[in-house]
Amino acid sequence: MHQGCATVLCVLAVLGLEVAALEECELARLLQDKLRYEMRLKYMKHNFPIDYTLRVQHEEVLRTANVTRLRDGKVSEASLRYLWFHTCSQAVLHILEVLPEKHPSHGYTQELSQLLDALGVEYSGYRQHPKLFAPIDGIAVAHPLSPQSDVDAVVADLVKQLHSADSRQKAVRPKALLDNCLKVLRMLFGAHCRWDSA
Amino acid sequence: MHQGCATVLCVLAVLGLEVAALEECELARLLQDKLRYEMRLKYMKHNFPIDYTLRVQHEEVLRTANVTRLRDGKVSEASLRYLWFHTCSQAVLHILEVLPEKHPSHGYTQELSQLLDALGVEYSGYRQHPKLFAPIDGIAVAHPLSPQSDVDAVVADLVKQLHSADSRQKAVRPKALLDNCLKVLRMLFGAHCRWDSA
Repeated sequence: MHQGCATVLCVLAVLGLEVAALEECELARLLQDKLRYEMRLKYMKHNFPIDYTLRVQHEEVLRTANVTRLRDGKVSEASLRYLWFHTCSQAVLHILEVLPEKHPSHGYTQELSQLLDALGVEYSGYRQHPKLFAPIDGIAVAHPLSPQSDVDAVVADLVKQLHSADSRQKAVRPKALLDNCLKVLRMLFGAHCRWDSA
Repeated sequence: MHQGCATVLCVLAVLGLEVAALEECELARLLQDKLRYEMRLKYMKHNFPIDYTLRVQHEEVLRTANVTRLRDGKVSEASLRYLWFHTCSQAVLHILEVLPEKHPSHGYTQELSQLLDALGVEYSGYRQHPKLFAPIDGIAVAHPLSPQSDVDAVVADLVKQLHSADSRQKAVRPKALLDNCLKVLRMLFGAHCRWDSA
């Protein structure tokens, strides 16, 4: 059953992939909208003391240059989106942790966190059903998250370091964290979600 | 002219003292109102990141215990109010310095600063016209601010250290700075302005 592919199952697998991709893109679009300049400026700069920084894990700052380097190392686009999701979620959680519940940026940051959580559900769904995305009838249907290659292992390692307490830390302004989130989001989801042609 | 006292001048001198005292108390009352708990909580705690501190001069933290010690050392009440004005103004300026203009606590902090500036004008008025408060016809009219005794010299020294860049620094939360401002304000202006009997 796992080796072959009945027509219905094939259709379901492809449909599942598309629906998941659609939801992923919808969420990414909502995140992009919420991370727009005026919002980041108001909630992450104006509402914070001047020069305020958070101490975050070194790997929590994922820049477009890092993504370019990983792409050159043949890391799959799906793995890169997964890495982005983890770094951005971690950054937003760190910001949320320093905000009192009644802080004027708390609601905004919580909404970002909820959107990322929803995206996390999408990704955890992929992880829980790897067989749906295993090669079917000799056609390689790439599982977007499973560490099937060395390059995906690089991402798995980065995600591990991201959640490690032993990792090096650096001081970063909250807006800079979200600036990176948005830049990498555009870089990774733009073509994937066909925003350019919209 | 300075040695004697024509009746009109005496009356003017006493009236001037009373009007100045009245304005000082009105301003202190406005400050007390603006420093009330809900305001400090909202603008100095909820609107700041958790555990946020400012580095301030050691002398900038004037506690009621410090005032009690200075009182025991026979520092005059007027000198103590002058010291309070300097420490509180400096604290408020430090808070203002870390706030972007569009920060939700900026307006509140600026209003505090303006009230303190107005009080400063009252005090600088005393300093610019010391002869009005010099002994008249043998009756000692105490100048509230001139460093005429050793204890006033203690205050002058503290104010000097307050504005010195070489002074020791400590990390203090913004709300703690204003908590102290209010406590010492009540301690020093309560009886002086007869708020207790109001």
